[in-house]
Amino acid sequence: MPRTFQHTIRVPYAHTDQMGFVYYAHYLMYFEMARAELLREVGLPYTEMEQKGVMLPVVEAHCEYKQPARFDDALVVHTHCREIRKARLHLDYEIKRDEELIVTGYTHHVCMDRNGNVMRPIPELSALIEGDPL
Amino acid sequence: MPRTFQHTIRVPYAHTDQMGFVYYAHYLMYFEMARAELLREVGLPYTEMEQKGVMLPVVEAHCEYKQPARFDDALVVHTHCREIRKARLHLDYEIKRDEELIVTGYTHHVCMDRNGNVMRPIPELSALIEGDPL
Amino acid sequence: MPRTFQHTIRVPYAHTDQMGFVYYAHYLMYFEMARAELLREVGLPYTEMEQKGVMLPVVEAHCEYKQPARFDDALVVHTHCREIRKARLHLDYEIKRDEELIVTGYTHHVCMDRNGNVMRPIPELSALIEGDPL
Amino acid sequence: MPRTFQHTIRVPYAHTDQMGFVYYAHYLMYFEMARAELLREVGLPYTEMEQKGVMLPVVEAHCEYKQPARFDDALVVHTHCREIRKARLHLDYEIKRDEELIVTGYTHHVCMDRNGNVMRPIPELSALIEGDPL
Repeated sequence: MPRTFQHTIRVPYAHTDQMGFVYYAHYLMYFEMARAELLREVGLPYTEMEQKGVMLPVVEAHCEYKQPARFDDALVVHTHCREIRKARLHLDYEIKRDEELIVTGYTHHVCMDRNGNVMRPIPELSALIEGDPL
Repeated sequence: MPRTFQHTIRVPYAHTDQMGFVYYAHYLMYFEMARAELLREVGLPYTEMEQKGVMLPVVEAHCEYKQPARFDDALVVHTHCREIRKARLHLDYEIKRDEELIVTGYTHHVCMDRNGNVMRPIPELSALIEGDPL
Repeated sequence: MPRTFQHTIRVPYAHTDQMGFVYYAHYLMYFEMARAELLREVGLPYTEMEQKGVMLPVVEAHCEYKQPARFDDALVVHTHCREIRKARLHLDYEIKRDEELIVTGYTHHVCMDRNGNVMRPIPELSALIEGDPL
Repeated sequence: MPRTFQHTIRVPYAHTDQMGFVYYAHYLMYFEMARAELLREVGLPYTEMEQKGVMLPVVEAHCEYKQPARFDDALVVHTHCREIRKARLHLDYEIKRDEELIVTGYTHHVCMDRNGNVMRPIPELSALIEGDPL
């Protein structure tokens, strides 16, 4: 059973647009911030992975916008790793304000070495699935 | 046959990340910039639409990352309107650097009035499909 | 004696550039995020001020870059209100990573009403100077 | 007599905030976009400079906000190099919408080599002052 990680983001004024809502591209950054915390929590901080020569570039990203978020909202990003298959990592996201669903989405990543070659996911990544913090 | 519109964007330093590539969220902004130009070209500048009380918030967005883009690249966003159905507008995008495909994606929009109610697309929007600049 | 407020920001990947450093414009956003927390702490959340018709647009901003910050750094923004004079509010900032100074800067704001007219700072703002949370 | 360079930027929706104005940090990015064009115009594209191992990190930045800019405005950034002294480059900016002044500001840069050591400005940079495109 995949664990779900939570990370809270306070919406800055910078991210609102003239409709008074969070501009749609920023949610991809909220996904990234939640991803970084998730990797830290399972003992694989992204900086350490990059130092070891493992990168996880995004190959696909998707967002569905359910309700607008506003300045100063405390948004909770719920992240879980759906699967790790071959060189690919699939992450699912739900962004909520209290119980209200704001955005759902996913990102797909490949494991790449320093030279840009696709590689097998390092075994430590399985902690994302099993949810056993190292 | 839907017309395809082109809009060129020069990648600023601000949009690169520490891998040396354009950060993945910025492509959604490139889609938006191309959308604005497309609407202007068919005689429906977005500012005028908003003044008339018609808004086109994004309800879904999708990106596939084929090749990384870099600082100072001149990226061409090719946009076309796949369909207008009920209250929805579907736009497809291809971002290229010369002949090389960098990113593909789409956005779905709904037509909304000032009070946040979904409304029928205004007839002028059909210019996007027919490609007849007004 | 003006109180100093502290707010911690974790640098997202999105904010790095191809030198591997935080891009220079983002520090202005870190200033804003710290400002919002400071106003909340003294009992004047910015959303409430805007609802009362008081806005604090920036009229001047300044940054000096001492050391680069990097992805995943935990930056602490130290903010204090230097003075409130006539319609103006002066805020000073220091951004540190542990004991190391990364950026210093300031912002000047004017108090404006909904119609864009300059107004006297509301008395509650003096809490910024006296440091007495309401 | 220093030449003034001009570069036009169309304000994207992404850059507006809930007041309906361009968020204050984005002007630093407009300065950067104008800088990149200026360097290209004098025959020193920034990518080539970096490939030669010359970098121009910003050590100081300043903005004064005169009038708000809005979505879809065509802003013209007027840039000129005030001086090159020792390792430092001083650039001044004025951003206008037609004849109206929106923002003024400056950036100071140092010349650095790949190892982060300050170096003398490369002679080619004097083209910025003399305004003789190479």
